[in-house]
Amino acid sequence: MTAQAPIQAESETGGGTWRFPANRPLRLDSGATLAPLEIAYKTYGRLNDERTNAILVCHALTGDQHLASTHPVTGKPGWWDRFVGPGKPLDPDRHFIICSNVIGGCMGSTGPASIDPATGEPYGLKFPVITIADMVRAQAMLIEAMGIETLFAAIGGSMGGMQVQQWAADYPEKLFSAVIIAAAARHSAQNIAFHEVGRQAIMADPNWMSGAYLTAGVRPEKGLAVARMAAHITYLSEAALQRKFGRELQRDGLSWGFDADFQVESYLRHQGASFVDRFDANSYLYITRALDYFDLAARHGGVLAEAFMKARHVRFCVLSFSSDWLYPTAESRDIVRALNGAGCRTSFAEIATDKGHDAFFLDEPLLDQTLRGFLGAQAQARGLA
Amino acid sequence: MTAQAPIQAESETGGGTWRFPANRPLRLDSGATLAPLEIAYKTYGRLNDERTNAILVCHALTGDQHLASTHPVTGKPGWWDRFVGPGKPLDPDRHFIICSNVIGGCMGSTGPASIDPATGEPYGLKFPVITIADMVRAQAMLIEAMGIETLFAAIGGSMGGMQVQQWAADYPEKLFSAVIIAAAARHSAQNIAFHEVGRQAIMADPNWMSGAYLTAGVRPEKGLAVARMAAHITYLSEAALQRKFGRELQRDGLSWGFDADFQVESYLRHQGASFVDRFDANSYLYITRALDYFDLAARHGGVLAEAFMKARHVRFCVLSFSSDWLYPTAESRDIVRALNGAGCRTSFAEIATDKGHDAFFLDEPLLDQTLRGFLGAQAQARGLA
Repeated sequence: MTAQAPIQAESETGGGTWRFPANRPLRLDSGATLAPLEIAYKTYGRLNDERTNAILVCHALTGDQHLASTHPVTGKPGWWDRFVGPGKPLDPDRHFIICSNVIGGCMGSTGPASIDPATGEPYGLKFPVITIADMVRAQAMLIEAMGIETLFAAIGGSMGGMQVQQWAADYPEKLFSAVIIAAAARHSAQNIAFHEVGRQAIMADPNWMSGAYLTAGVRPEKGLAVARMAAHITYLSEAALQRKFGRELQRDGLSWGFDADFQVESYLRHQGASFVDRFDANSYLYITRALDYFDLAARHGGVLAEAFMKARHVRFCVLSFSSDWLYPTAESRDIVRALNGAGCRTSFAEIATDKGHDAFFLDEPLLDQTLRGFLGAQAQARGLA
Repeated sequence: MTAQAPIQAESETGGGTWRFPANRPLRLDSGATLAPLEIAYKTYGRLNDERTNAILVCHALTGDQHLASTHPVTGKPGWWDRFVGPGKPLDPDRHFIICSNVIGGCMGSTGPASIDPATGEPYGLKFPVITIADMVRAQAMLIEAMGIETLFAAIGGSMGGMQVQQWAADYPEKLFSAVIIAAAARHSAQNIAFHEVGRQAIMADPNWMSGAYLTAGVRPEKGLAVARMAAHITYLSEAALQRKFGRELQRDGLSWGFDADFQVESYLRHQGASFVDRFDANSYLYITRALDYFDLAARHGGVLAEAFMKARHVRFCVLSFSSDWLYPTAESRDIVRALNGAGCRTSFAEIATDKGHDAFFLDEPLLDQTLRGFLGAQAQARGLA
C-alpha cells in the first residue's frame, strides 16, 4: 500500500491511489481476475473514532472520484460540488465522504488504459469485461482496506444508483443506509440500444484500431464525440432541450450548409468535443457494457425482491425525476416495490422537474431538501447527530 | 420530356423519371436553382377523365417512390404496400396514386449523387441545401406536368406529413383533402439534436471525404450505419423495444466481449447495415437538414394558423400515435389548433398504440379504418364514389 490512508490525512480533503498487491487480485464475474488492482479515490472530511460516519458516493457512467474537488483535466468544480461541503447535505464537518473511480474507468483506477502486466502495454481490448458487481467488489476492498466496517450511507445517481443497489444485494451487512437516485434495477432494451449506438460510433472510428489506439499513439476522438452526443440527448428531457435551445440560431439567418446553425447543434458538438479531452474511448465501451449487463433480479432467480432480502435493516431512499426518460420513474417504482417486497424500510419520492435525467447534477432544491432530510434522520438513528 | 406520362400508361402501375428541361429550373428557398430537374416517380391506377382522382403520397426521410411496388435494391415490398391495392384504403381501381422521390433523395430524383452539369461529377456538397417547401415545389411541377389541376388528396406520414402541410400552405388551390400522419409543424430541439448526431457520425467517417466520396469511389458506410441506428431508436417506442427484444440474448449466455450479446443490438446493427445498401449518405445529410429547417409558422409571421388561411376549403385529417416520441401527439394537436384557427375542416385522431412513430408503416387496424373512412367520405364529397 503506497497510498496514504485517508483516515490518517491531515487535511480535510484527501485521496490518492490505493494499490492492492498482486496477490490480492479482484475476482471478476467473468471468471477473470484483475491484478494488481489500483483504485483512485478522493475523500472529504474525517472518519470519526467510531468509524461510523463514512459515506460512499458512487459515480455515474462518465463521472469520477472528483466529487467535490476541481477536476484535474477540465479545471471545473467536482461533479457533485453543490451537494458536498460545510452545511451541505454531504458535510465534511460531519461525514467522511469517499468517492472512488470505478474499475474500467480512466481517472486512475485500473481500466483498459492501464498497463497490462502481461504485456507491458495498455490493456485495450485485453481488459476483461466487467460488471456493476465487479465495480462494487472493488469498492468493498477499498472500504475494508480503509478500516471501515459499515458505511453510514452509500449514495449514487444513475449508474451510481445501480452500484448502491448492488451494495445492498452483495454487502448488506456493510450498509446502514442507501440512496438510489434516477436509476433502474436493469438496463432496458432502449438503454442497451443507445449504448450500442455509442459503441458502434467508437468502433467505426479508424483511430480506434481494435482498441489498441494508445499503443499506436492515436485516439478515436470523432467516434467518442458522436457517442457522447447521442448519449447526452438521453440525459435531458425534450422539454429542457426545447426551453434551453428551442430553434434558436447561432447567428442571424441560416447558413444553408452543414455548419451548426442551431444552438442545440453547437451545444451538442461542444459536449462531444469537450468529452474526448477527459474520457477514454475504451473505458466508455467497458462501462457501457457493464451497464447493459446489469440486471439485478437475474442474479437472484429473476425476483428483484430476493436481491434485497438480507438488507432489511438498511434504510433506503429511492428518488426519481418526473421527466427522466433514460431511467423513468417506473423503473424506480420497480425498485421500491422490490424493497417493500423484501421488507426493507423504504422512502420514495418522484421529484417533479422538467430537467430530465441530469437533474441529479443540477439545481433542484427538492433533491437537496430530500437528501438533507433523509441523511439527517439516518444520522439521528445512527447516533451521529 | 423523355419519360412516359403516366396518364398514357397502359398498365396499372406506371412511373419513370420526369425530366424537366434546363430552361425549367426548380427555384429553391436558398436562392439557388436546380436544373435540369429530374423527378423519379411511381403511379398506381389510372387518372379518370375528369382528372379528379389523383392522390399524392409524400414519403418520409428514408422513403422513396416505391410506395407499393417491389423495391429495386432490397427486393422488399413497397413501404406502404399494406395501404395500397384493390380494396385497400388507397385503391388503384378508384384512385390514381402518385409517389415521387423527393429532391435531394437518392432513388432517381435530382440529389447530391446526381451529376452536377457544371462539373460533370456528382454534386456532393455542391448540391444546394433544400427545404421541405422546395420538395413540394418540385412535386407541384410534376403534378402540373401530368396535367393534374387538383389533387383529390395529399397524404403523408412523418416528413411526408410535413410536405402535406406545406402543400396546404403553398398550393391550397390544388388540394381537395389532406392527411397528415405522425408529423409536426416544426422540428423541435430534440429532433434537431438527433439529426445532428447522425450527420456528425457520417461526417466523422473518413470515407465521407467532405462529401466527395462517390468521385473517390468509396462510401461512408460505417458513419451512415451509426446515423441510422441512432435514428431508428427514435422510430420505436421504449415499450415496443422492450416487448420485441427486452433483454433477450442472441445465444446462450453473455459473450463477455463486444459482440452483439443482446437481440436489440443485433437488430440495430442489422438496421444500420441494410440501410447503407439502399441509401446515400449525402442524401441523408440534405434531407435531415431540410427537416431541421422546417418551421411552417416561421414562414407565416410566427403564426401557424396563418399558413392555413387559404386552405379553408381543404378537408384535413390529422393523425398521431400515442407512443410516438419523435413527433408526439402534442405536435399534432398544435397543427389541429392552427387548422381550427384558420377555419379549416379538420378531423383529428390519436391512435392508441405502443408501436411508436413507425406505427404508420405497421399493422395498425385503426389507421386503416381511419384512412378508409376519411377518404371514403371525401370521395363522396368529390363525387368519386
